[in-house]
This record gives sequence, C-alpha cells and structure tokens, in this order.
Amino acid sequence: MSVRRVLTGITTTGTPHLGNYVGAIRPAIGAAQQADNESFFFLADYHALIKCSDPAQVQRSTLEIAATWLALGLDTSRAVFYRQSDIPEISELTWILNCSAAKGLMNRAHAYKAAVQANEDNGDDPDYAVTMGLFSYPVLMAADILMFSAHDIPVGRDQIQHVEMARDIAQRFNHNYEELFVLPEARVDDNVAVLQGLDGRKMSKSYNNTIPLFDTEKRLKKAINKVKTNLLEPGEPKDTADSTVFQLWCAFADPEGVASMEQAFAEGIAWGEAKKQLFERVNDELSGPREEYDRLIAEPGHIESVLRQGAERAREHSAPLMKKVRSAVGIRPMG
Amino acid sequence: MSVRRVLTGITTTGTPHLGNYVGAIRPAIGAAQQADNESFFFLADYHALIKCSDPAQVQRSTLEIAATWLALGLDTSRAVFYRQSDIPEISELTWILNCSAAKGLMNRAHAYKAAVQANEDNGDDPDYAVTMGLFSYPVLMAADILMFSAHDIPVGRDQIQHVEMARDIAQRFNHNYEELFVLPEARVDDNVAVLQGLDGRKMSKSYNNTIPLFDTEKRLKKAINKVKTNLLEPGEPKDTADSTVFQLWCAFADPEGVASMEQAFAEGIAWGEAKKQLFERVNDELSGPREEYDRLIAEPGHIESVLRQGAERAREHSAPLMKKVRSAVGIRPMG
Repeated sequence: MSVRRVLTGITTTGTPHLGNYVGAIRPAIGAAQQADNESFFFLADYHALIKCSDPAQVQRSTLEIAATWLALGLDTSRAVFYRQSDIPEISELTWILNCSAAKGLMNRAHAYKAAVQANEDNGDDPDYAVTMGLFSYPVLMAADILMFSAHDIPVGRDQIQHVEMARDIAQRFNHNYEELFVLPEARVDDNVAVLQGLDGRKMSKSYNNTIPLFDTEKRLKKAINKVKTNLLEPGEPKDTADSTVFQLWCAFADPEGVASMEQAFAEGIAWGEAKKQLFERVNDELSGPREEYDRLIAEPGHIESVLRQGAERAREHSAPLMKKVRSAVGIRPMG
Repeated sequence: MSVRRVLTGITTTGTPHLGNYVGAIRPAIGAAQQADNESFFFLADYHALIKCSDPAQVQRSTLEIAATWLALGLDTSRAVFYRQSDIPEISELTWILNCSAAKGLMNRAHAYKAAVQANEDNGDDPDYAVTMGLFSYPVLMAADILMFSAHDIPVGRDQIQHVEMARDIAQRFNHNYEELFVLPEARVDDNVAVLQGLDGRKMSKSYNNTIPLFDTEKRLKKAINKVKTNLLEPGEPKDTADSTVFQLWCAFADPEGVASMEQAFAEGIAWGEAKKQLFERVNDELSGPREEYDRLIAEPGHIESVLRQGAERAREHSAPLMKKVRSAVGIRPMG
C-alpha cells in the first residue's frame, strides 16, 4: 500500500476550544501516527488575513494554535508542521494558478455566493465589502494543496467544493503545460464528532458557547458547570439522548466509561455530580497537555524554531516543484 | 528638489519593434539618465502569463527584451533593471494586497470590462475565458508599484486607471494597518511619439504592420520599402502631413534633418529616394546597438547575471519593506 499524503490547514484567527480538539485536532494527530500516512499541517496565516485585520490577533492565534498542536503531542519528526507564510513558493504558485483558474469558477464558490446573497438581502451592492482576498481564496487554497502534491484533504462538507476547485485548476494546468500536479481528493469523515457547546448547539466561537481547551483548571470547571441541563432532580432518571453533559462525556470516555455513565443517568445521577465527573475526566486528559502548553506559550522562541524547521522540510518539496512549475510556464534562467 | 522614483514594467510577450523603440524605450532610457530620477525597469513575466501560455515565447521574449534595453544603452549601474519573477516579495505582497483590495474595484477595470463586453456581444457567459489572472491583474500591478515605493508611473492613457487602483489599495492598507506605502501617480506624456506602421495605422504587433528593431539590415531595408505611399511620381511635390515615410523620418532626424526633408518633399523627391534616406538614417542610429544586441543575444548567461544583479539591488528595497508589511498585518516571528 502506497503512502498517501494528507494535508490540513488551520486558520490562525482564534484560540482552540474543546470542540476544535475533539472534532479536529485529536483525530488529526491520531491519523498522523498511522504508518500509511504522511501528514502536512500548516498554520494558514495568509488565510487569516482575509477574515481578520487585527495584527495582534493573527499573531497571538498563530502562537496559540502552534502551542496547542505541539502540546497535544503532534510528532513533528514525522508530520511536517509549518507556517504558510514561511513558504515563499505558495504565494508565487498562487499567482501562476490565477492564470489557469477561470473566474467563473470563483463566481460559484459558496463563501462568495453567501456574501453576495447577504448583500442583496440588505439591498447593498452585491460585492459590498467583498475583498479580492475573499474572492480568490480558493486559488490560494489550491496552491496550498498542489504545492505539496497532497492526495487527501480532510475537510468538512462545506469545504468539498474548494478541493474540487483545486482539482479543476490542477487539471487545467496539467493540460495546458505539463503534468506536474497531483489531483487531490476531499476526504469527509462523517463520523467526526461535532461537539455541543454550553447551550447545546454546535460548539463554535461564533455562538459564544465554547469551553476553553487550555485555560486554567478553575475556568474549565466553571465552564463545564455552565453546560445547559434540564430541571430534573437528583434521583430522577435522566435521558442521555438530549443531554449535552452526556455527549461531552462520550467524547472523553472509553466504552466502559460510557456504559457506566448511561447507567448512572438511568439511576438518576445529580447534574452536579455528572458535571463533576465530566470535569474530572476532561481534566485528566488535558492536565498534562495543559502544563506543556503553558510551558510552550512561555517559550515562543522555541515554537518559532520548530516552525522554521518544519518550513525547511516543507520547502524540500515546494522548492523543487516550483522550479518545475516555473520552467513549465516559461520562467527559466537564461543561458 | 527631491529624487523621484520612476517605475516601468515591460510585459514579456513580444519582440520589440520600431514603435516600441520610439514610443517607449528610447524616451525611458533618456529619462533614466536624468539626475533627479531613480529609475526601476522590470521585465513583467508574471504579467506575460496572463496573455501567453506558450512557455517558449515567454522565455524568448524575456531574453529579447532584456537584450534590447541593454543594447540600447540602459545604464544598469544607475537604473535598477530586474525580472519581476526574481523578486519573491512581489507575489507575497500581491496576496496581502488582495486582502485590502475591494472586488468591486476590479469589476470596473477597463480590460476586464472589455472582455465582458466582447463575451456579451457574442452571446457568451460574461466571464467566458476570463481567468483570475486577467481579473486580478490590477492587484499584481499594485504590488509591482507599491513594493518599490515608486512615485511616478509613466503610462499610456489606458493604464491611468490601474495606477489609480494601486493608490486606492495603498490608501486602504495605510488606513487599516500602517502608513507603509507611497501613493503613486500616473505620468502621462501626451507628447510621446506614436509611430505609424507600414500601413499608416499605429505600429502594433496586433496590426501586423511593424518594422523590426533588431532584425538584419537587409530586413530593415525591406520593411521600410514596404511603407505605404501614394502614387505621386518623382518630381511631383509631396505632402508631408499624411506621409508615413515623413512621420518615420521625423522620429529619427534632428530639426535640421526634418527641415531638409520637408524641402525635399516640396521639391518632389521620389518615394524610393525618400525611403532610401529613411533607411540610412534609421540604420545609422540602430546599427551600433544592433551589433551589441546580436552579441548579447548570443550570451544569455551574461544577461542572466545582469538581471540577477538587478534583482539583488531591487530586493534591497523590497525585502525590508516586505518585513514591515508582514509585521503590520500580524505575520511576525515569535519570541
């Protein structure tokens, strides 16, 4: 079985929360340990600029996300872990791909169409507040993917289209010039856990219902105590099906633990007690990484050097491929 | 009086002809010798990719254009002469400016609107065959200009809009982040000579009416002999006003020479004789540079090294400014 290259980008605009951990980071780090995978993870700071014009936030988020992945045990001797902006070939490839990318393709991108729809609903110009960054984001994403000859791109359903656009652009280039690009495939894992937030909706920064991943133990406890429950008293049997507490528990417990919490629900465990056990279980899993995270955050110079080493390894792929791409389009040294 | 930085790009898709020489290259090289100017000239090979997907043509044109400017005496110890694709900061800045550039601005670009109009006239989809390269070309041009803090951009009337877009994008960036970019100004020289071609229309590759700049002497003579004239016989007085031969003469003669040709026209000089004198005059000016051109074309390795030296000098400006730009948007080393 041949090794598949898997590439994942993480946009550097926020602070990772428990939903990111369960839904994305933990499974990705797990997958990166499989022998038949070669994993590329990158901090997508050029993408961050589309959404965020606060430089301090972009900078802080980059540090926090890097520290998070490292603290959670990402093995950077195996996985290639780098910052997008450390790879000069990516922006160059973005321009070259622009010349193979149909504008009509971008017109159909979901994110752009949603922005236009919102503007039209408000009676604004369709392109009101739409930047060229938002509009041409799929070309940058194509460069991210094609630059490293990635086979598999794990994405949510909303991102499938962007991977298909990368395929389309790669096919055009391969046809017009030379067969240089691997055609990537979107990998959607429908089993990926979507964690519920404090209010029972999907845990998301935009709903302001998140539980912190690496805040203090005290704040973790406080957040878990705020998880929405119903008014059933201690002793009254509780339904696991609609319980956010139970859903969170399942994301952290082994099968045995799940079974015993099911029983406790049936036996009418008090919400306070269930939350206490939930906190302990989550904290057990996170207290080691949290210590490591705090240590790393205090040592940004170390993270910088880890990312630079990652960039060097990434450029072992991007620099030779870019040389071929340049030559294919006619940008060649003379003589 | 402070030194103004003047920046000019030359798209590498064709072979320079006499019209390019008289209308653009000769005046630019002249201007570059003025003490109050600091000139940046670049071979716009990323731009070439928008129009031309023939790698051999892009490559050949880059060589020919570089050899032309050098053969015509561009002083590369004063002017900074480089190839766009040798400056990695340019494509990076292009992406960052994308995030400050309104898509609505691009919708209004003449070149894009002309393409849409042509499609609509043909009953095609408005964006038929429009690439993201064509659509976002003004952002690349903004990066070309802003990267070197250029004050003055000599352009034809059709390019004024692009310089204004670069100003607009620079203003947005300066306002949202930091005052890092000089606001460039378009400089239109209405006195610039528009040379007539063989058929009396503007000399242009697209009309297929050009006279070669550095082809052999024999072919130059042959081309000049094909310049359109009327049927007046030797001895019949000729009108200078509608004569392409006379217009070409004026582009190469000094005032004295112009006056004597006027007299010759009034006295009924034969077309054959006028063309012979025109050929000799043009050839006098070009034979030295032609020899140099032939020598340079045969030594592409030398041209390569001249361009690399130019790129090094250009990067003395682009690298430090890019560092500031990155920091301004939040792309900063940690620790």
